Amino acid sequence: MVPRGPVDSEDKGEGGPGLERIIFFSDAVFAIAITILVIDLRLPAIPPGLSYEEVSTALDHALQSVFTQQFQAFVISFLVIGVYWVAHHRQFRFIKRYDPGLIWRNLFFLMSIAFLPFPTSVIGEYGNHSQAVILYALSVATTGLLATVLWHYATSNHRLVDPDLSLRLIRFYTLRTFSTTAVFLLSIPIALVSTLAAELSWFGLLLPTLYLLRRYFGF
Amino acid sequence: MVPRGPVDSEDKGEGGPGLERIIFFSDAVFAIAITILVIDLRLPAIPPGLSYEEVSTALDHALQSVFTQQFQAFVISFLVIGVYWVAHHRQFRFIKRYDPGLIWRNLFFLMSIAFLPFPTSVIGEYGNHSQAVILYALSVATTGLLATVLWHYATSNHRLVDPDLSLRLIRFYTLRTFSTTAVFLLSIPIALVSTLAAELSWFGLLLPTLYLLRRYFGF
Amino acid sequence: MVPRGPVDSEDKGEGGPGLERIIFFSDAVFAIAITILVIDLRLPAIPPGLSYEEVSTALDHALQSVFTQQFQAFVISFLVIGVYWVAHHRQFRFIKRYDPGLIWRNLFFLMSIAFLPFPTSVIGEYGNHSQAVILYALSVATTGLLATVLWHYATSNHRLVDPDLSLRLIRFYTLRTFSTTAVFLLSIPIALVSTLAAELSWFGLLLPTLYLLRRYFGF
Amino acid sequence: MVPRGPVDSEDKGEGGPGLERIIFFSDAVFAIAITILVIDLRLPAIPPGLSYEEVSTALDHALQSVFTQQFQAFVISFLVIGVYWVAHHRQFRFIKRYDPGLIWRNLFFLMSIAFLPFPTSVIGEYGNHSQAVILYALSVATTGLLATVLWHYATSNHRLVDPDLSLRLIRFYTLRTFSTTAVFLLSIPIALVSTLAAELSWFGLLLPTLYLLRRYFGF
Repeated sequence: MVPRGPVDSEDKGEGGPGLERIIFFSDAVFAIAITILVIDLRLPAIPPGLSYEEVSTALDHALQSVFTQQFQAFVISFLVIGVYWVAHHRQFRFIKRYDPGLIWRNLFFLMSIAFLPFPTSVIGEYGNHSQAVILYALSVATTGLLATVLWHYATSNHRLVDPDLSLRLIRFYTLRTFSTTAVFLLSIPIALVSTLAAELSWFGLLLPTLYLLRRYFGF
Repeated sequence: MVPRGPVDSEDKGEGGPGLERIIFFSDAVFAIAITILVIDLRLPAIPPGLSYEEVSTALDHALQSVFTQQFQAFVISFLVIGVYWVAHHRQFRFIKRYDPGLIWRNLFFLMSIAFLPFPTSVIGEYGNHSQAVILYALSVATTGLLATVLWHYATSNHRLVDPDLSLRLIRFYTLRTFSTTAVFLLSIPIALVSTLAAELSWFGLLLPTLYLLRRYFGF
Repeated sequence: MVPRGPVDSEDKGEGGPGLERIIFFSDAVFAIAITILVIDLRLPAIPPGLSYEEVSTALDHALQSVFTQQFQAFVISFLVIGVYWVAHHRQFRFIKRYDPGLIWRNLFFLMSIAFLPFPTSVIGEYGNHSQAVILYALSVATTGLLATVLWHYATSNHRLVDPDLSLRLIRFYTLRTFSTTAVFLLSIPIALVSTLAAELSWFGLLLPTLYLLRRYFGF
Repeated sequence: MVPRGPVDSEDKGEGGPGLERIIFFSDAVFAIAITILVIDLRLPAIPPGLSYEEVSTALDHALQSVFTQQFQAFVISFLVIGVYWVAHHRQFRFIKRYDPGLIWRNLFFLMSIAFLPFPTSVIGEYGNHSQAVILYALSVATTGLLATVLWHYATSNHRLVDPDLSLRLIRFYTLRTFSTTAVFLLSIPIALVSTLAAELSWFGLLLPTLYLLRRYFGF
């Protein structure tokens, strides 16, 4: 009935334009999510009717407030989305085929990426409140979990990767992706005690974890 | 006068860069529409001059309000646009040529995609009002209709698809794309009675419909 | 000193990745400009503290106001940007090389595309004021002018197109692109008398002009 | 253990899809940053309840205010991001391989690009205050510095470029990229005396610098 080519009702294929479009669409979502973070960098409105000197003083305060709060959230989220983009880039070097299962897991992963500007905006404004930090940590942890699910789906039984991709490398990337989730989940109880300590733990735990993974696996 | 290549005044061609650009432009519109949905996730402003504890309580309420309203609209619309992206991805696996008719039908379809963040924002804020639900249902139904028009144009007499693409598969995709329109149109009278029932009907009807289509056609 | 390849200080080349990147970047700017038009579709804020019925009435008015004003501006600008995207698509089917002159003319053209959401927003809110209509007409006319400049630069002496591209086709596209500019400039004196007449003239003049061009050139 | 292909734990490769994705992602960030500049072109709200003539007068003032302030910032930043896009385009014509060092330097460079809409918005509103001009100059200078770092990393010892790329050309592009940084840093002391002089110096210094570079190197 369907005599040639990839023409069956399932949307799947070997690399080619179909896979490229998935990667391309993902890149566009990453790029938009990472760039619209800047929309939350906004000066608080300075009331009209002030003298030049008063505006100047108000501007100093406004800039200082943006750089001690929203700007830090901008940088952290840019790096977080950047890390996930790099991870996605790495994963799709090995993924050679696609099927509906991959397309949907990738879409849910992208939903968590597209969502990140919201917790960023909350932590940028209320970073000293534990709810804001917990929401942020949960969002990043969920993103990491969905990235792990995507990678696990693609690699289990070498479903969508080369048959000779080593199990060691597969496991290394599983742990590496999941480690972000672990670190951000661990920061949640810390946030109940101190929001600053939780934010610092993201850096303090992530780097050693990645280092240990690398060391343990000998790469 | 024009001795070689696709150089006549009509903008049409066999695959190649021209078709790729159409797909690429479409993907970019999809990606932007799906990602700027997050812009409507915004905390209601918390008035200045509150104590730390008062801000904390207000923040709890604000987050709860976002997650019971705007967040649900974000997830539903992300899935709706995602479903249409997957459908577009599937359609363009079979479309091998383009002509001005396809370009314009595709642009009108993209207009309905680019429009979706607006009804999403309305239903996110006024989801318990029937107008908001009807506007949303009409918008999604229109999108489905325009996707069906696009597919019908490309496939009738195998205009822009392979000559051996089976009629059965063409019909299957027509029905599948149109079924979204049918379900969302059916939800409009329901919305006049209960907005919640209408929203639930989107899930309650869509999955069985897709299942029956698949079963009936034996794929 | 520079023994091979396109490695001199000028940024130019024959098709290939360099030209693709210019097209790609242009497509992305088009896609973003056309999709963020939706950001101006916003309900006027409904004051808090109203009853369910009062909110419902206010919502009716708000939706009506959006659909009689901003929505029309959204549709018109979507079509305008769509028309220019189609024109750009058509032009770059014939452009085979690039040089800094093309890159910069293309950037200025893209600036006028990226600017269009602003006059759209103004006409969406103040469409019955002649300044809004004139600003809009001037912006679209400028875009058309810059598209004509781009096409003229690429085709004069067949600078960046195939040597056998017919002069008749080159002239046809020059006139076709410039005709948008002419129509929108002509609407400016009309706008001083009636904003509605000016807006109608965009449709009333554009189609006959394109028809005559096509007829005259016999395509 | 990993018998073939680029499958080791380092994310690097010779051109191909991996490098294309980096370029593509960069282009998308450039395109979004350059296009959302328009979001800051917003008319100041005109209070409700005015007569048609009063609205018309208020609209005149509002448009005039946008065109003497925000619009100039829009044009300058469009050109600045455009210049950096052209520079990135030029650099990646010569970059043939990638490694994690390039990916991360590119991400930090893109962060500075994605950040530019913020100082643009500040200078658009407070262009006559030296803090706004200094913030803008610092942001553009940082972007230029990060572009220089990227180029230096890619070219030192011909790490990621063709081995026969001439040192003269490498040095020329290093100086050309860095010259933007130099000019914008030099404008900072000027801004303490006069914001207008600082803004003019961006044009007054940049062109002669580029000219001298070109002349000195004999290209």
